[in-house]
Amino acid sequence: MYLGIDLGGTKIAAGIGDEKLNLDKTIQKPTPQKREEILEEIRKIAEDFCSQFEIKSIGVGVPGAVNNDGAVVKIPNLEGWDNFPLEEKLNSMLPKKTYIENDANCAALAELVAGAGKKYDNFIYITLSTGIGGGIVIGGEIYRGAEGTAGEIGHMIIDVNGPQCGCGRTGCWEALASGTAISKLAKETPEITEEGKEVNAILAADLAEKGNESALKIFQKVVEYNAIGISNLANILNPQAVILGGGLTKRTKLVFDPLVEELKKRNVNTIIEKAVHETGVMGTIALAVKNTT
Amino acid sequence: MYLGIDLGGTKIAAGIGDEKLNLDKTIQKPTPQKREEILEEIRKIAEDFCSQFEIKSIGVGVPGAVNNDGAVVKIPNLEGWDNFPLEEKLNSMLPKKTYIENDANCAALAELVAGAGKKYDNFIYITLSTGIGGGIVIGGEIYRGAEGTAGEIGHMIIDVNGPQCGCGRTGCWEALASGTAISKLAKETPEITEEGKEVNAILAADLAEKGNESALKIFQKVVEYNAIGISNLANILNPQAVILGGGLTKRTKLVFDPLVEELKKRNVNTIIEKAVHETGVMGTIALAVKNTT
Repeated sequence: MYLGIDLGGTKIAAGIGDEKLNLDKTIQKPTPQKREEILEEIRKIAEDFCSQFEIKSIGVGVPGAVNNDGAVVKIPNLEGWDNFPLEEKLNSMLPKKTYIENDANCAALAELVAGAGKKYDNFIYITLSTGIGGGIVIGGEIYRGAEGTAGEIGHMIIDVNGPQCGCGRTGCWEALASGTAISKLAKETPEITEEGKEVNAILAADLAEKGNESALKIFQKVVEYNAIGISNLANILNPQAVILGGGLTKRTKLVFDPLVEELKKRNVNTIIEKAVHETGVMGTIALAVKNTT
Repeated sequence: MYLGIDLGGTKIAAGIGDEKLNLDKTIQKPTPQKREEILEEIRKIAEDFCSQFEIKSIGVGVPGAVNNDGAVVKIPNLEGWDNFPLEEKLNSMLPKKTYIENDANCAALAELVAGAGKKYDNFIYITLSTGIGGGIVIGGEIYRGAEGTAGEIGHMIIDVNGPQCGCGRTGCWEALASGTAISKLAKETPEITEEGKEVNAILAADLAEKGNESALKIFQKVVEYNAIGISNLANILNPQAVILGGGLTKRTKLVFDPLVEELKKRNVNTIIEKAVHETGVMGTIALAVKNTT
């Protein structure tokens, strides 16, 4: 068995699985604030699992860039992690060999090891979710770039006169077509409302699926922007396939199918696949499997 | 010595050089129309050089995508080249081992072998010229992608509501910031004029350098769009460096220096280098050198 630990901004999720990513026991803990407390929590989780199961190795996913030396470059919403040699540190603390990786890259690895990416050695994994992120696989390996920050696809500018992005620039893919962007548009649209429900991307999607025209219009634009983002990546990297994950992708009739159609219309011949794994723990188990077998 | 032959839409240029890309004799011929005539011209050039000099190997650059098997995928402005196994064909016709490669990738190789890319194994070469093209180097090798079309960076959409591009879409980087785009803007600007001179990108640049305000305005936007294109690539690929070539790059005070400034303002930390080689023959010699030594 392999242990995966996914460090998130609000929770630490962990679980064990085999080479084929059949998931067994999983647990979840709130993320402590300080780095030392987080490390201690990871140590406890690892020792718990390792005392109960025969664990071959451990994969740890982090919500930030990781460089080729296994150091965290930066975690946007957590303090004290800049240039922290996490892989080295964890290997000195945990009972089994431990690997670390950026969370979007872990999701790409889950598809590579036992998912929609199994038959490719050159693909881009894209998560269309609260944000838009990616993991690039070249030659069967994660491509991290010079400092580990490759795959920051959500901050590709596709409409320079578009809305403000959290990163300070305007018209980033993420500012136009992510869950956060949809929630913002929904809040500005009086027709998107339902008693007792929060107005956000999920409500907008639910209403669009029921035929609400204002909501449908939002999703038509979202599909178009996602097609542009994917088409840009296809022009730059010419991958064998693009694998789509994340909550938006799961809306098959509202997002996934129209997106595949829109890409065809734009003469993008790249194969589009739907991710088969949930992100999070699954990817961190894949990280351990990939490095061990 | 190594022989390089650069097949262009209007001329075939050839020359010889050594490992350090010191260029010796060069020649130039018009490009015949038909594929068989082009092949025959290449054969004649190769035999001529090989009878006069001691040639180790031959590099041939083509203005279209080349796949990992040495076949031409397509040459946009020449007929009869779709899926043509050019490397195999040339090796059956020419007196020395021959390699083929896309022309922008050849330009990247020239920088890698003996230019601004010598100290990197992971960079993006970008030509800012009539069009905008690129060559991606990963792990010291050209990255071609699944079908050989990787590096089509000029058709990255950065302003979806922008002007029409030759590719049929709108707002491509090339439609906003290439020599062709500048020529078009110049023609629409009455203030850009000089007796006896054609109104094009070169005149616009000359006038901007002399302080013509309308021309300067065009170049301010061009610099901004080029910064966006480069910033997008840096976010996606996190290369060690970006190497800029092509005619626009040579306008140091008008384009190159302001572009480096604009990238700093946008927090792009990637090292920006100026290409040291002319594109064309030099890159094809580099192709031969890279594959032989």
